[in-house]
Amino acid sequence: MTEYIPPASQFARLPDGFAMKRGGSISGARVAYETWGRLNEAGDNAVLILTGLSPSAHAASCAADPSPGWWEANIGPGKPIDTERWFVICPNALGSCRGSSGPASINPATGEPWRLDFPRLSIEDGARAARCLLDSLDIDQLASVVGCSMGGMVALAFLQQNPGFARSHLNVSGAAQALPFSIAIRSLQREAIRLDPQWNDGHYDDAHYPETGMRLARKLGVVTYRSALEWRGRFGRVRLEPDEQDGEPFGHEFQIESYLDHHADRFARAFDPNCYLYLSRSMDWFDLGDYANGHVHEALASLQVERSLAIGVETDILFPLNQQEEIAQGLAAGGCDSEFAGLPSPQGHDAFLVDHERFSPLIAGFFAGLS
Amino acid sequence: MTEYIPPASQFARLPDGFAMKRGGSISGARVAYETWGRLNEAGDNAVLILTGLSPSAHAASCAADPSPGWWEANIGPGKPIDTERWFVICPNALGSCRGSSGPASINPATGEPWRLDFPRLSIEDGARAARCLLDSLDIDQLASVVGCSMGGMVALAFLQQNPGFARSHLNVSGAAQALPFSIAIRSLQREAIRLDPQWNDGHYDDAHYPETGMRLARKLGVVTYRSALEWRGRFGRVRLEPDEQDGEPFGHEFQIESYLDHHADRFARAFDPNCYLYLSRSMDWFDLGDYANGHVHEALASLQVERSLAIGVETDILFPLNQQEEIAQGLAAGGCDSEFAGLPSPQGHDAFLVDHERFSPLIAGFFAGLS
Repeated sequence: MTEYIPPASQFARLPDGFAMKRGGSISGARVAYETWGRLNEAGDNAVLILTGLSPSAHAASCAADPSPGWWEANIGPGKPIDTERWFVICPNALGSCRGSSGPASINPATGEPWRLDFPRLSIEDGARAARCLLDSLDIDQLASVVGCSMGGMVALAFLQQNPGFARSHLNVSGAAQALPFSIAIRSLQREAIRLDPQWNDGHYDDAHYPETGMRLARKLGVVTYRSALEWRGRFGRVRLEPDEQDGEPFGHEFQIESYLDHHADRFARAFDPNCYLYLSRSMDWFDLGDYANGHVHEALASLQVERSLAIGVETDILFPLNQQEEIAQGLAAGGCDSEFAGLPSPQGHDAFLVDHERFSPLIAGFFAGLS
Repeated sequence: MTEYIPPASQFARLPDGFAMKRGGSISGARVAYETWGRLNEAGDNAVLILTGLSPSAHAASCAADPSPGWWEANIGPGKPIDTERWFVICPNALGSCRGSSGPASINPATGEPWRLDFPRLSIEDGARAARCLLDSLDIDQLASVVGCSMGGMVALAFLQQNPGFARSHLNVSGAAQALPFSIAIRSLQREAIRLDPQWNDGHYDDAHYPETGMRLARKLGVVTYRSALEWRGRFGRVRLEPDEQDGEPFGHEFQIESYLDHHADRFARAFDPNCYLYLSRSMDWFDLGDYANGHVHEALASLQVERSLAIGVETDILFPLNQQEEIAQGLAAGGCDSEFAGLPSPQGHDAFLVDHERFSPLIAGFFAGLS
């Protein structure tokens, strides 16, 4: 089992016997995180940033790790989330393999990796772990909780668990519940891994690794993270050069196929398959409506937050635009000063990672307007 | 190798040495087909219907096979394509396993199935085989050529090869060229089959069969044949009953997952994997623009057809609406009396197989107006 921990990571211990929503508990567990900026004397300038499925806590560069973070464009001095003003904290998701405890971590009770003995993971567990991290930093209020993609689910769970703790919320391509198209895609991704004989019910190692399943899962992910519109303009029907083709029967011939290969190359060995399965399923399970008798709108309206912005993208097929609109409307119904922005980015679900021209001004405006 | 031939099938021989577009030829080959209605004395009431990837020639019921066909709602006495008026011919696609020659058929030169020795298959080969079928029936003109999905590509190739042969064209959820999103999806489906060790470079049998790969490919197909909108209304977040769950690690819990399973059950053993690979790739290769120096619009404008209707569906992600609009505009630019209809069906690419309420009146109107 390999973990992939960025060098600037700090660690917060979770209390022993940290109880998981769906049963079981973990002891000796931790949350990896990074911070930027400083907590002010009033203690009221903290911003919590919650990530999508795969990123680490390294959201932006810092002295200890000058490599660009996954949201480098938006976090730093003078940037939309200005670290001269805000104290920014980004945890690695609970259940991940980038420093926080998860299926790839050592279970202190056995000295072996948890693998599938790790308790069932819910989005709500990640939200509770984030609160433990804030407690360890003596943070008792947040200027804002920000969540991107899966992190948008964790952020809503955090608000539900901690009424009045955060003054504002920025939801970026998130959702208040998983819907069947996204569940189907994730189910197929998990199936590709589970059906790889090398997965072996989670008992793989580097020499016997479900690389085939991970590659298929990642490629399917990339197909749903981007958009047909973007690819039409970017790849069209351009062929690979003959010497770039693999020559296999039904092998790759188009640039788009090579692009997917490249993404699979980068991911398949850089993210733990069991962690992927756990985090993927936690998204399917999430439904904020569970906290209001199945009514998402009412559950959103019950959240206590003063100000919010939900941003989505027209070409997103995984977390479609109407899900961010639903968040904005639900929060507004609860009295929140709530805004919604639907962007015409061609890059689909991943737009928040690449379309800085459209996203950064909105994020900057939101944070400039916070009290 | 299994073929799955409907009982009412008739067969037309292709000429020996039938040359394939990308090289090689086939001898002793045939096209399976069914017909409805009768050719009139003037010989001017024939309608050719070209299918998607998987259907057989059994488009509608008949005396010899009263089982419902794949377009039962639209073909028959008094139906939108009224067989009291029209002589309707539907071939099984060349390269398929439902009666026409393909990789699952016996190569007469060896007495063994062709498997991957079948020559590379192009959409244009299917169009030429359809013309051979018409010749064998002494049909020298068509009132209309109709193509659905992949058949919409074959129909455009047919028009390109046979100027002035068809007076009209109905294109249903088709495309004049494959675009990268669809290529990516099909590439992943082929990869799922190719990576199944049981595929064995095409040398499987019933006891050693790439069922895992076929199931994954079909599930991914179904995800892209329908739409998020439909599934949200149809399945929502409804769970399987505990006794319907498989109990495997990360096993299925939601109705949408069981729905995909059901589709995979029906398809995996009922369509030949090599045929699937050949037909899938033929779609990626198709680009009508090849006949006008890469310009699709010009290629469409050069087709000689008097009247046309292109129908598409707003929720189709595989053959998106702008591709049917492109067909209509291109044909119009060539002087065709060309119409376009974009339907708000929630069922995505498959809508033409199920949303008869929206499709049938359009089809009926188009055929009623033909001379």
